[in-house]
Amino acid sequence: MSKHSDPKDAPPISNGLADNIGNVRHTLAHLLAAAVKKHYPKAKPSIGPAIDDGFYYDFEFPKGEAPSTQDLPKLEKTMREMLRAWTGFDREEVSARSASAYFKGNPYKLELIKDLQKAGTKITFYTCPPASYKKSLKGTSSDAHSFTDLCRGGHAENPSRDIAPDSFKLDRIAGAYWRGDEKNKMLTRIYGLAFASKEELQTFLEAREEAEKRDHRKLGTVLGIFTFDDDVGPGLPLWLPNGAAMIDELEKLAKEMEDKSGYLRVRTPHIAKESLYTTSGHLPYYKDSMYPPMKCEGVNYYLKAMNCPHHHKIFAARPKSWRDMPVRLAEYGTCYRYEKSGELFGLMRVRSMQMNDAHIYCSEEQFADEFRKVTELYLSYFKIFGIQKYVMRLSRHAPENLGKKYINEPKLWLKTEEMVRRCLTELNVPFTEAEDEAAFYGPKIDVEIWSAIGREFTLATNQVDFAVPARFGLVYTDKDGKQKTPLCIHRAPLSTHERLIGFLIEHFAGAFPLWLAPVQAKIIPISEKQASYAKEIFTQLRDAAIRVELDDSNDTLGKRIRNAKLEKVPYTLVVGDAEIKSKTATLESRSKGKIGALSVEEIINKLKQEISSRAL
Amino acid sequence: MSKHSDPKDAPPISNGLADNIGNVRHTLAHLLAAAVKKHYPKAKPSIGPAIDDGFYYDFEFPKGEAPSTQDLPKLEKTMREMLRAWTGFDREEVSARSASAYFKGNPYKLELIKDLQKAGTKITFYTCPPASYKKSLKGTSSDAHSFTDLCRGGHAENPSRDIAPDSFKLDRIAGAYWRGDEKNKMLTRIYGLAFASKEELQTFLEAREEAEKRDHRKLGTVLGIFTFDDDVGPGLPLWLPNGAAMIDELEKLAKEMEDKSGYLRVRTPHIAKESLYTTSGHLPYYKDSMYPPMKCEGVNYYLKAMNCPHHHKIFAARPKSWRDMPVRLAEYGTCYRYEKSGELFGLMRVRSMQMNDAHIYCSEEQFADEFRKVTELYLSYFKIFGIQKYVMRLSRHAPENLGKKYINEPKLWLKTEEMVRRCLTELNVPFTEAEDEAAFYGPKIDVEIWSAIGREFTLATNQVDFAVPARFGLVYTDKDGKQKTPLCIHRAPLSTHERLIGFLIEHFAGAFPLWLAPVQAKIIPISEKQASYAKEIFTQLRDAAIRVELDDSNDTLGKRIRNAKLEKVPYTLVVGDAEIKSKTATLESRSKGKIGALSVEEIINKLKQEISSRAL
Repeated sequence: MSKHSDPKDAPPISNGLADNIGNVRHTLAHLLAAAVKKHYPKAKPSIGPAIDDGFYYDFEFPKGEAPSTQDLPKLEKTMREMLRAWTGFDREEVSARSASAYFKGNPYKLELIKDLQKAGTKITFYTCPPASYKKSLKGTSSDAHSFTDLCRGGHAENPSRDIAPDSFKLDRIAGAYWRGDEKNKMLTRIYGLAFASKEELQTFLEAREEAEKRDHRKLGTVLGIFTFDDDVGPGLPLWLPNGAAMIDELEKLAKEMEDKSGYLRVRTPHIAKESLYTTSGHLPYYKDSMYPPMKCEGVNYYLKAMNCPHHHKIFAARPKSWRDMPVRLAEYGTCYRYEKSGELFGLMRVRSMQMNDAHIYCSEEQFADEFRKVTELYLSYFKIFGIQKYVMRLSRHAPENLGKKYINEPKLWLKTEEMVRRCLTELNVPFTEAEDEAAFYGPKIDVEIWSAIGREFTLATNQVDFAVPARFGLVYTDKDGKQKTPLCIHRAPLSTHERLIGFLIEHFAGAFPLWLAPVQAKIIPISEKQASYAKEIFTQLRDAAIRVELDDSNDTLGKRIRNAKLEKVPYTLVVGDAEIKSKTATLESRSKGKIGALSVEEIINKLKQEISSRAL
Repeated sequence: MSKHSDPKDAPPISNGLADNIGNVRHTLAHLLAAAVKKHYPKAKPSIGPAIDDGFYYDFEFPKGEAPSTQDLPKLEKTMREMLRAWTGFDREEVSARSASAYFKGNPYKLELIKDLQKAGTKITFYTCPPASYKKSLKGTSSDAHSFTDLCRGGHAENPSRDIAPDSFKLDRIAGAYWRGDEKNKMLTRIYGLAFASKEELQTFLEAREEAEKRDHRKLGTVLGIFTFDDDVGPGLPLWLPNGAAMIDELEKLAKEMEDKSGYLRVRTPHIAKESLYTTSGHLPYYKDSMYPPMKCEGVNYYLKAMNCPHHHKIFAARPKSWRDMPVRLAEYGTCYRYEKSGELFGLMRVRSMQMNDAHIYCSEEQFADEFRKVTELYLSYFKIFGIQKYVMRLSRHAPENLGKKYINEPKLWLKTEEMVRRCLTELNVPFTEAEDEAAFYGPKIDVEIWSAIGREFTLATNQVDFAVPARFGLVYTDKDGKQKTPLCIHRAPLSTHERLIGFLIEHFAGAFPLWLAPVQAKIIPISEKQASYAKEIFTQLRDAAIRVELDDSNDTLGKRIRNAKLEKVPYTLVVGDAEIKSKTATLESRSKGKIGALSVEEIINKLKQEISSRAL
C-alpha cells in the first residue's frame, strides 16, 4: 500500500509533529486559516493538522460562499504577505468558559473545547500575524488580519525567518466530514504542500506528476489489463486478456522457482464449512473481514479468506514420516476479504486476491534452512523485477505477553527470532525489528519494497506458525517412531497478483520487460500489399508462443507505429516490399530503437532468448 | 456421468420395457417376488421394475426378518425351480375394489391402486408360476408357490422357453425409500442382473470387476490424486499434489491448443452481484442449483455457477470492431453448483468444478468456421487421450415452440442447425439428432465418450447462443459502421478437471501417459551406498522439469520397485555401483520393461521427447 497521508489518522486538534518540518507545516495551517478568515470572514474554522506532505485546514463556509480552486492563488498570496511580517505566535492560557465565549457560534471549536475540558487538558490559544494586530480575547473577530486558534502548540519559532515563502503551495480543495464521520456535516478542506525548501517542493511535484502518469488505475485501463464492473461488484477485478497474460507469466515464474525448490502444488476450493475456521481459530478474529456465510442444509459455508486451513487438511490427508519432511504445499489460491467500500483502492485494496501462497511444514531442525531458502527466493524475485530498495521488518513477541497475546513457548520464540535474525544478517538483507508486534502464533516478517520512482509498497508478509498445526492435529512420524507436530512457515513472496501487478505497472510505467509484456510484438505492414506476408509472420510468431498482434488497420503507418509505442509493445516488426523480397522484417525495440531487417527465424530466436532469460 | 441405472427414474408401477430383454427383466422381477413370498410369506411387495442391467424388487419385511446377502443363493435357486415349470402369466382385469381387497394390509399396493383409479387406468393382475397353483382372486395369498401382482404387463411370452436359467443372477440388497422419498418408509431392495445369455452376463460381470478396479474414487485415493474432507464440505475435492500436477498439465495442454487457435485468456472472480444473474436470466432458472447468496451492505452476492456472464462483461469492457471479431475468451473458471448431497458421486458429481470454459463471440458469417474449429479441437483432444469411441448429439428446436420454449428466430435456428449438421458431416463425426431438446437460446451439442473399458461418459456440452449477448447489450461495430450483436458459442471440450480426471483415471486405470503422469520417474538406489549419486540424478531430472521422486527408504530393492509399479510410475531409474562407474542409470519402462543403462542426459532427452509429443 502506498503510504500517502491518511487524513483519518489526523488528531481532532491540530498538534505539531515532533520534527521541524512538522512544526512548519502546522504553522502554515494557522497561516492558511488567517488568510481564509481575511477573505471569508464568515468561515468557521475547525481543525488543521500537519500531514505527510504539508497541511490542511477544514472550514464550514456559508452555503454557496466556499472558495474554489481558482481562489487558491489569492489565498496563497495573502499567506505570503502575512508571513513576511510574522515573527511568532502569541500564546495564552484561557479558561473553558472564555474559550467558549470567544468561539461562540462555531460548533466545531465548542465541541473541541468541551472534549478538552472533559479530559482535564489545559486550554491554550495561539494567535497569528501580525503581532501588531493582536486583539484582546474580549473583542470580536472583526479584525480579519489576525487569527486566534485553539491549539496545543508545536510551531515554527519565527515563521518569517524559518519558512521560505516559495517552499509551500496551496494544492487542492476537497470535501471532508467533520471528524471523518459521514453522519456529520461535510466541511471544505483546503490542502497545502510544504517542504523544507523550494527545491524539495519542486522534487515532490515532479515525483507526483510521474506517479500520476504511472497510476496503475489509469495505466491499467489504457493498457487493457483489468476493469471493474458494477454488476460484478466493487473490489472484484475482471482481468482482461492483457492482465491474464501477465498473470500466466507470473504463475509460470512461480512454478519454475518453486518446482526447483521442491514445492508441491495443490488446488483447493474457494469455500469451506464454518467448522474449518473454528478449528483454525480464524473465525472469531476474522469474521468481519470475511464475506457473510452461505447457509445450506443447516451448514454455514464461508468463502475462504486465507488458504492455510485448506492446506493443513491436505497435509493431514495422508500419513507423513520424517522422510517426507519438509512438505512445501504451494497454490495460487484466490481468497476473498470483505474490505470496506471506502477502503477499496484500484488493485491495491481489493476483495478478491490471487495469492502466491505456500505453507512449509518442517521440523524445528529444518526451520533455519527453510527460512533461508524463502528469503533467498525473495531476493531472486527482487532481482528479476529490478527492485533495488527493500527492507524486511521482523516483528517479535514481548516476553511479558507470553500466554496472553502470544503462545507460551518462550524458548521457541527466542530461538526462531534469533534464527530469523541470523538468516537476515547472513544474507545481508536490510531489516528492522519491532517488539510486541508478532502474530499470536509466531514471529512475522513484513517486506517493504520501493518502486522505480521511490514509492513504498508493502509486498508481503511471512509468518512463522507454532500454534495452528497443533490445532489441526498435524503430525509426522519422526525417526524415533514418535509423532511430532511440525512448524509451519506461511509465505507469499509474489504477494497477490492484484497488488504485485499494481506495483509493477507503476514500477515499469507499463513498459514491462519482454517476458512479462502482455503483447510482446506487433507486426505492422506498410500497406495492404503486405497483408498476407504480415499474416504469415504473425502465425509463425504465434506458433512459437510469442504474444503477437497484427495491426493491419486503415490507420497510417505513422499512427500505427505511434499506437504500438503508446501500448508500450517491446518490439515492432515493420514489413514492406523490401522485407518481402528479402524474407525479413524490420525490427524496432521499444527501448533501443531500430535494430534492422532480420529473418523471421532470427527474430523469433532473439525474442525467445530474451523471454527465457527474463531480462529487464 | 456414468449412465448406470438411476432408480429414481423408475416408474412407480413395474412396466415392461419395449424391447425383449426389458420384458425378460421385468418377468424376472415377478419371479423374484414369487420366490421371496415363498420363503418370506409376511413380505409386502411394492414395486419391481426392469432396469438397465437387470431388475429389482422392493419389499417391506417384518422387523428383523429381512433377507441378507447370504440368502440370495437360496432365492435364486427357488427362482430357477419355478422358472422351469412356468410357461406364461395369467392376466385378469379387476375392479379397484377387488384389487384393494386382495392387497388388504399392503399399503404400497393400496396406494398404487388408488393412483390408478384416480388416473382412470385399467387395473390388471398378473399371476405367476406355476400355472397349476393359480388361485382365485377371492382366496388369500396363503399359497406361497403362486404370486399375483398388480401390473401393466410387458413380459416374456413363455418364461421357461424364453429365459435361460443361467442368464440371470441375484446381485445385492440395498435400502430404498418407498417412492424414493426419504420421508417415506425404508424398504428392502433386492437387485438382480439379467442378460440375453449366460455369456452376456459373464461379460458384464467381468467388465464390472474391471470397472471396480478402475473406480476413480478408489484409484484416486491410492494414487494420491484427490481427497474429500468433512470440514471443507461434501462435493468439494481437495487436489493433492499428484492431482494438481495433472491439472497443471491439462491446463498447459489447453493453453497451447487455445493459444494456437487465437483464444485470449481472461480471469474473473468467483462471485458476482445478484444483478449479473438477473441480466443473464440465469437466476430464476438456476437458483436452486446455486449456493445461497451472501448479503453484504444490502447487496446479494452469489458464487458463480457459470462463467459466461463474467465473460460477457469482459467482452463489453472495451469497444469492439469487426476487426476484433471473433473474440475468443478462455478461462479455466471454477464454478460452484449446489448438487443435492445424495447425488454427489466422487469426482463425477461435485459442487466445485474447474471448467475448461471459453466463449466465442462471432458474426453469423463467422459461425460455421468457428464451430468447425471447436469440433476439430474436440477431435484433437480425443486423439491425445486415445478416445476411440464418441458420438455427438445435436439437440434442435421444435418449430411449434418458437417464441415459447425457444427464442423466436426461425431462420437463425434452421441456419445454425444446418451449419452444425454440415460441419459434423464434413468432419465425419458420428452424431445423432434430437428435436425439441435445444437450450432456449440456441442448438446444443452433447458429447458422449466411451472409456477404454467401454463405459459411457458425458464429457461436455457445447451451446450456440443467439439470445444472451443481446441481454447484455454486447455489440461490435461492423464494416458498415452499424452496431451488431454477436452470436456466442459456449464450449468446454476438456469438460471440468473433476469429470475429465475421473474419466482419465478409469480410462488409463491410473497408468497415465508420461506427459500426464503425476510422478514421471522414480529413482531407486540399490543400497545406501548410491544415495548421493541417486540424489544427484534426482536434482538433474528435477531441474529438467521432470516430475521425479527418489525412493531411498529402508524397504528392500524389490519392494521399492514393486511400489513404483503399484503407483504406476512410467519410468524407474535403478542405480547401483555399476551405474555410478559408468555414469548411467538403468531405465525400466512401466509398459515396455527394462530398457537398459543409459546416461542421465540420454534419459532426460528420451523422457523430454516423449513428454513433449504427448505420446500415449
